[in-house]
Amino acid sequence: MKRTDFLLADGERLDDLQIDGLKVIQHKDQFRFSVDAVLLSHFAHLKKKSRVLDLGTGTGVIPLLLTTRGADNITGIEINAVMADLAKRSVKYNQLEDKIKIVQWDLREIRNLFQASIFDLVVANPPYRPVKQGKISELDAVAIARHEVSATLEDVVMTARYLLNMRGRFAMVHLPERLAEIIVVMHSVGIEPKRLQFVHSKMGKMPVLVLIEGVVGARSGLIVEKPFTIYNEDGSYHKDIMEYYAR
Amino acid sequence: MKRTDFLLADGERLDDLQIDGLKVIQHKDQFRFSVDAVLLSHFAHLKKKSRVLDLGTGTGVIPLLLTTRGADNITGIEINAVMADLAKRSVKYNQLEDKIKIVQWDLREIRNLFQASIFDLVVANPPYRPVKQGKISELDAVAIARHEVSATLEDVVMTARYLLNMRGRFAMVHLPERLAEIIVVMHSVGIEPKRLQFVHSKMGKMPVLVLIEGVVGARSGLIVEKPFTIYNEDGSYHKDIMEYYAR
Repeated sequence: MKRTDFLLADGERLDDLQIDGLKVIQHKDQFRFSVDAVLLSHFAHLKKKSRVLDLGTGTGVIPLLLTTRGADNITGIEINAVMADLAKRSVKYNQLEDKIKIVQWDLREIRNLFQASIFDLVVANPPYRPVKQGKISELDAVAIARHEVSATLEDVVMTARYLLNMRGRFAMVHLPERLAEIIVVMHSVGIEPKRLQFVHSKMGKMPVLVLIEGVVGARSGLIVEKPFTIYNEDGSYHKDIMEYYAR
Repeated sequence: MKRTDFLLADGERLDDLQIDGLKVIQHKDQFRFSVDAVLLSHFAHLKKKSRVLDLGTGTGVIPLLLTTRGADNITGIEINAVMADLAKRSVKYNQLEDKIKIVQWDLREIRNLFQASIFDLVVANPPYRPVKQGKISELDAVAIARHEVSATLEDVVMTARYLLNMRGRFAMVHLPERLAEIIVVMHSVGIEPKRLQFVHSKMGKMPVLVLIEGVVGARSGLIVEKPFTIYNEDGSYHKDIMEYYAR
């Protein structure tokens, strides 16, 4: 009997994360993880013994990938019950229940779940686009993951601030077009932006994503890392991304 | 008789701007213009009939270069009397007195020089580094140009906001490490960051400068332009910068 027989329901599939033998369950009708989550998992500054929280964990891919970097105390919260269930089963499949805990929860209600200042690192791959009148016809699961239906940028950043201890870090992946808002909101809640990296589909082109990390209570001063490139001119993967898998 | 005989004092020299035959007077003991000014002059969004102000014009190099892009109503203010005099003589040498006016003035006293909201574009290549106790031994002319002795980042941005009309633009060149502060200050005075471009000495390396442009009263949403490269791998100028001179 294949091990997946008991694991997968209709419409679900088991995808290989291509690292440490990790696999993740995804559903064809739900938001599926993309390179954004992979980039964030490697960008975040991870210290030993860090207590890590992933806000809006989706399939749980970020907690899974963070274990390959040594994290062993990760909580993922996810508002969508179907996704939270997928994530829980992925954790179980990978036998990582001792390192990863998935909680189905609304981050806007975080105070009813956790005390303040108990995490060292909060990561988020949040919805990228604000909700605009008439833009979203149905408030389905994919819409919640892509648009700020259930949590705005401010909700995410304020939640991170509540959860982080002094000098704790918040790392996020987002769209470059939202960068000014992100910096203003982070600064306003006391998470000072300290590292920034732009992700380019091809070298020399406009960035498609931005990775940002802030530190609670830090003084100003930003390191803008070298550009991160995904593809070479010939369409093959650039060494920036190959290095994540060459182990 | 060489035309420079009556123009230059001891320690001064006449440097070729390599475009439209423009020349600029510089002094060996004073701050001399660098590539930063050239980049800003080309980055700023310049509309026809724009009334332009250059905050801290130094040698006047930015007003001179802006004329090559069609600007014909530019004022440069400069606190340092020696520099303001150099700039005035450069304007005269290039016979651009009908397009460029240089005023020796402290930007912190701008309300005594100009009414509010009378400019369409304000540009600034301000001092990059904050003043820190013990860092500056002598408050000389070069220190004023490099450190925030006579104007802080906030002074510069607030002055720009005072001078700009609704939808007016503010363009600045600065250090990447100051970017978060710049965005927070611009946003706080109502100049919304709209365009960003990082300048790289070589492609794929960390940026050495950032160019930023904001619009008064605009809604949020930032365009991050493709990276700007100065040198090729072999040390020759990259086409990004060569294009400024290929006319």
